[in-house]
Amino acid sequence: MTRVFNFSAGPAALPEPVLRQAAEEMLDWHGAGCGVMEMSHRGKEFTSIIEQAEADFRELLAIPSNYRVLFLQGGATQQFAQIPMNLLNGGSADYLVTGSWSKKAYGEAQHVAGALGGAARLAGSAEADGFTRLLRADELDLDANASYLHLCTNETIHGVELGEADQLPASAVPLVADMSSHILSRPIDVSRFGLIYAGAQKNIGPSGLVIVIVRDDLLGRAAAATPAVMDYKVMAEHGSMLNTPPTYAIYIAGLVFQWLKAQGGVAAMEAANVAKASLLYDFLDASEFYENRVARDSRSRMNIPFLLRDEALNDAFLAGAKAAALTQLKGHKSVGGMRASIYNAMPLAGVQALVDYMRDFAARNG
Amino acid sequence: MTRVFNFSAGPAALPEPVLRQAAEEMLDWHGAGCGVMEMSHRGKEFTSIIEQAEADFRELLAIPSNYRVLFLQGGATQQFAQIPMNLLNGGSADYLVTGSWSKKAYGEAQHVAGALGGAARLAGSAEADGFTRLLRADELDLDANASYLHLCTNETIHGVELGEADQLPASAVPLVADMSSHILSRPIDVSRFGLIYAGAQKNIGPSGLVIVIVRDDLLGRAAAATPAVMDYKVMAEHGSMLNTPPTYAIYIAGLVFQWLKAQGGVAAMEAANVAKASLLYDFLDASEFYENRVARDSRSRMNIPFLLRDEALNDAFLAGAKAAALTQLKGHKSVGGMRASIYNAMPLAGVQALVDYMRDFAARNG
Repeated sequence: MTRVFNFSAGPAALPEPVLRQAAEEMLDWHGAGCGVMEMSHRGKEFTSIIEQAEADFRELLAIPSNYRVLFLQGGATQQFAQIPMNLLNGGSADYLVTGSWSKKAYGEAQHVAGALGGAARLAGSAEADGFTRLLRADELDLDANASYLHLCTNETIHGVELGEADQLPASAVPLVADMSSHILSRPIDVSRFGLIYAGAQKNIGPSGLVIVIVRDDLLGRAAAATPAVMDYKVMAEHGSMLNTPPTYAIYIAGLVFQWLKAQGGVAAMEAANVAKASLLYDFLDASEFYENRVARDSRSRMNIPFLLRDEALNDAFLAGAKAAALTQLKGHKSVGGMRASIYNAMPLAGVQALVDYMRDFAARNG
Repeated sequence: MTRVFNFSAGPAALPEPVLRQAAEEMLDWHGAGCGVMEMSHRGKEFTSIIEQAEADFRELLAIPSNYRVLFLQGGATQQFAQIPMNLLNGGSADYLVTGSWSKKAYGEAQHVAGALGGAARLAGSAEADGFTRLLRADELDLDANASYLHLCTNETIHGVELGEADQLPASAVPLVADMSSHILSRPIDVSRFGLIYAGAQKNIGPSGLVIVIVRDDLLGRAAAATPAVMDYKVMAEHGSMLNTPPTYAIYIAGLVFQWLKAQGGVAAMEAANVAKASLLYDFLDASEFYENRVARDSRSRMNIPFLLRDEALNDAFLAGAKAAALTQLKGHKSVGGMRASIYNAMPLAGVQALVDYMRDFAARNG
């Protein structure tokens, strides 16, 4: 078996110790006589798994006690509809569009708001600049009476990240943030947000799980047409188990949380992520062969798109990378070129191997 | 490692060869250098996995070409809302209530219909008899103009199964069936149904996946408020990948389908399931110590609730069973007593071990 360095944007590489433990426990979890996939979600074994996962997740992000943690299904895409269903409350919500994902969230909110009564309103867009930078404060048109203000703090496709608290828009309405592709990669101040959501398949675990962190006072506002299983208040009251939760995905997420704690938690991950991202950005910025077009104050530590200045070499670059056990580097079709997604599970050695390969490829083709 | 005989109603026991293969492939699927959980859902590896899973599922159930197979999230509970959202079309839908699950489906349809415009109507209920039998034809009050007629063909909690085609209600409107807990346990004539749905966590694979089989002509009727990710037509057009699907759950389901084919397919499973169910029902019917109260023509082959006539012995029965490596036998709280769920993955040896234990327990306590 040869493990590659897997730069997939998601579903993405997971820590090898997590996968080894999952494989070992597949047929018999802690002497239960069956695997986690085969357990009743109401039994004491799985109850201990989900409770430990929530406790570890809360500890890692220092989540205040007035926030609920929900383990849901349908991914961020379902949240694009579920958020206005739960929070619009007949009003208008503001959306900042800084890349493909926040644009999709805005589109779905318009669709849902139009049907339920209410509105989704564009409060700022960086599309004219090709989504290569964050929005400046003077570009925002904020509604002080909005039901909430939605933003995506890391744009997986465009490689734009809003990571520093002082980059957050100055607004007193509840901030709702899609953190799918950078959650747990750096400390955050949860109390600055009304709701945070994250699809698991980047920094948390397998696809099929989305985690929602929601402030207590935002529960209980759902539109009448909201399915029970999509009503945050109902799910909070049922401990995420109105229906059968995605038990195996929650178990894997729990193992990832324990691995993160063993690494030193989110602060330690941030240091590692800074080192990894700096290595690649410094190389890109010094190169005349490759380039990254995102503004320096807006660059993602997690998703780094880059272009070969001679795009005719793209196929050769990807083929050589694969031969060097560096996979999933092709950029998203809407951006082209390449993309290296370097989430928590990607070691510095993987980024070093990528930079070494890129340097060598440039030397041979420059 | 000791594997128990696990009688959980769901998530439920999976075939051991499936779990062994999943464990072996956890870190490296077919030489890809990464596990299935870590693969992009858009890559050729996962594309081959989902396409093979769909092809095998279609073959196992002989699904006609004018039906689409969708791999979705949110379980049957989300379908309880999604079905009226997609199929009500401003009209009225009929519901047959034959146990807890169809009752929940009816309740959620009333909720959704009330909000979207339209109605869910009770077309028959067996509740007065404690859900111990199927409905008779002369008890049904069917609306010939209903948007659809919903039924649950196997009630997991009450152990009532509608398995024979001649037990289906005589109706020309599209039949919509929750087959979560007996799909793939016996051949079915898919063409008799407009839509079939099944949460995976009984006979298919892990929780977090629900499979929908829907006839082409029922696509495109969704209410305006339907989230894109819940619109059957949108998901059919995107091959179940408008968003990231639950990739690992689909992979496990695919392994289960291959295991089923190796066992001889659904007809062979039916023969095995008849043998297993007969062994337990024959023992129960001959016993003065235990009883099953479901009418003989309505009994489930998958979920067999039974009572000890002396309920004071329940705890001792469960403790002894666990000591004999027979687990998850406690009945649902709404019914009490015991329940043995004996899905495809439960071997005859497991049912024999249960009957042997029950006989011994009765002899010691009778």
